[in-house]
Amino acid sequence: MDFEILKKHKSFDGETWFCEHSSNSTKTQMKFSAFVPSDIKDIDSSIIWLSGLTCNEENFITKAGVQKYLAGTNTLIICPDTSPRGLNLDGEDDSYDFGSGASFYVNATKGDYSKNYQMYDYIINDLIQLLKNDLGIDNVSIMGHSMGGHGALVLGIRNPGLFKSISAFSPIVNPINSPWGIKAFKGYLGENVEEWKKYDAYELVKDGNLVRNTILIDQGLNDEFLQTQLKTSLFEEICREMGQNLKLNMREGYDHSYYFISTFIEEHISFHINSLKKS
Amino acid sequence: MDFEILKKHKSFDGETWFCEHSSNSTKTQMKFSAFVPSDIKDIDSSIIWLSGLTCNEENFITKAGVQKYLAGTNTLIICPDTSPRGLNLDGEDDSYDFGSGASFYVNATKGDYSKNYQMYDYIINDLIQLLKNDLGIDNVSIMGHSMGGHGALVLGIRNPGLFKSISAFSPIVNPINSPWGIKAFKGYLGENVEEWKKYDAYELVKDGNLVRNTILIDQGLNDEFLQTQLKTSLFEEICREMGQNLKLNMREGYDHSYYFISTFIEEHISFHINSLKKS
Repeated sequence: MDFEILKKHKSFDGETWFCEHSSNSTKTQMKFSAFVPSDIKDIDSSIIWLSGLTCNEENFITKAGVQKYLAGTNTLIICPDTSPRGLNLDGEDDSYDFGSGASFYVNATKGDYSKNYQMYDYIINDLIQLLKNDLGIDNVSIMGHSMGGHGALVLGIRNPGLFKSISAFSPIVNPINSPWGIKAFKGYLGENVEEWKKYDAYELVKDGNLVRNTILIDQGLNDEFLQTQLKTSLFEEICREMGQNLKLNMREGYDHSYYFISTFIEEHISFHINSLKKS
Repeated sequence: MDFEILKKHKSFDGETWFCEHSSNSTKTQMKFSAFVPSDIKDIDSSIIWLSGLTCNEENFITKAGVQKYLAGTNTLIICPDTSPRGLNLDGEDDSYDFGSGASFYVNATKGDYSKNYQMYDYIINDLIQLLKNDLGIDNVSIMGHSMGGHGALVLGIRNPGLFKSISAFSPIVNPINSPWGIKAFKGYLGENVEEWKKYDAYELVKDGNLVRNTILIDQGLNDEFLQTQLKTSLFEEICREMGQNLKLNMREGYDHSYYFISTFIEEHISFHINSLKKS
């Protein structure tokens, strides 16, 4: 197989893996974790999880409690790191919301970042090929949290044939109007806002890019970033206007943390497994 | 209430708390986390969780997935830090297995450590009083992992009237014969091995200290520390010899990590809730 398993831990009746492989898109080694709930030969489908700012391949697989809900199925979950690492680019490690741990899942076009920060292609090409070629898995769904929720929506909406279903926790739905998104897109893509719109879920739906299956979103109402960065209601409005099916659960009292994710991850896993089984 | 809630996160239908209070035993501020699954006024029982080497109050409550299994009950779980912090004692932060994060839940009698490293008393007095006086909870069980499994066994066996049930993951059952235990006990208690035996589960049972209820232990067979540090089979032998009821699950393929704990935590929670209900 074209990846290396660095560590594995028996979990429920399966295994939690920490892996590394070489990426053609980022031209670096990239890490990912996975939970493989049964014999790898029996696995027939996968969910891709995209994490948020500051995270790496470890946060979700240790904190969300997802193993419990995949146990007994033939669906694995794969959780890539959130950016290339260790490139020593100018400004790469200066702030939590740009550079390392903060790729925003775009293909950078600006300056030094354009060479390696090709995370859109990394997910769509390298990770999907690893699933297909190395593991024989064609059936894939995508989900994520915050910056990774943005990633799941953008990658999912732009590749409707590739992903059977899309869900997100606390996604940044309109990054071109969010301080996090504006900073990142300026740094990775330059000043042309038209280029930014390719990576904006609100703008993609507004432009008529719809997916057949219902999109599932959970959003905590006590999330400190809801009003300033996430702006979930904008996505609800544009989906209604354009006829995109959306199930949006606004959850009273929940915040932006993994305590929120772990509460509702079971529903998201069921949602994806149902879609993956239909294919 | 005599403690401060520093942060709380809605989790399932309850709340995950991060708290701080002043300890008479350690003469420091001590931190703990808790999951309170329902209105605090309805809570009638508690499980104390003791963590292992290098951990603080956060590891278990973020990684074990325990909230899922306490949701809907009136039993909270409370998870204290594993040592006093920030005392600047000689050698306190030099190694992972002594000082900060490595109290071994003893009352230190040696040198500078004797003033604050009174973690046995901290659990038995301060934490129990917080449960009783501040929260009105009399019904308490105890469990832990590795060094915290050792702590749960020792505190539980020495205080049979205080704890309704005892369980452990991967405990150090005979620390006076384990490199970790020998280093810690020398540092905290001095050279007199007779003093060490007060904090050794094997020795306590051998000396006739039995508890009425069955003790539950889960141990991974792929645990890298099993042969050198944990020596679970010694405890099995002495329990059989002395007539202490023990349910020991040796788990094929599992290691020492939270991936192991999260797999079997549901069974341990059920075990404790059953005991707490009977009281």
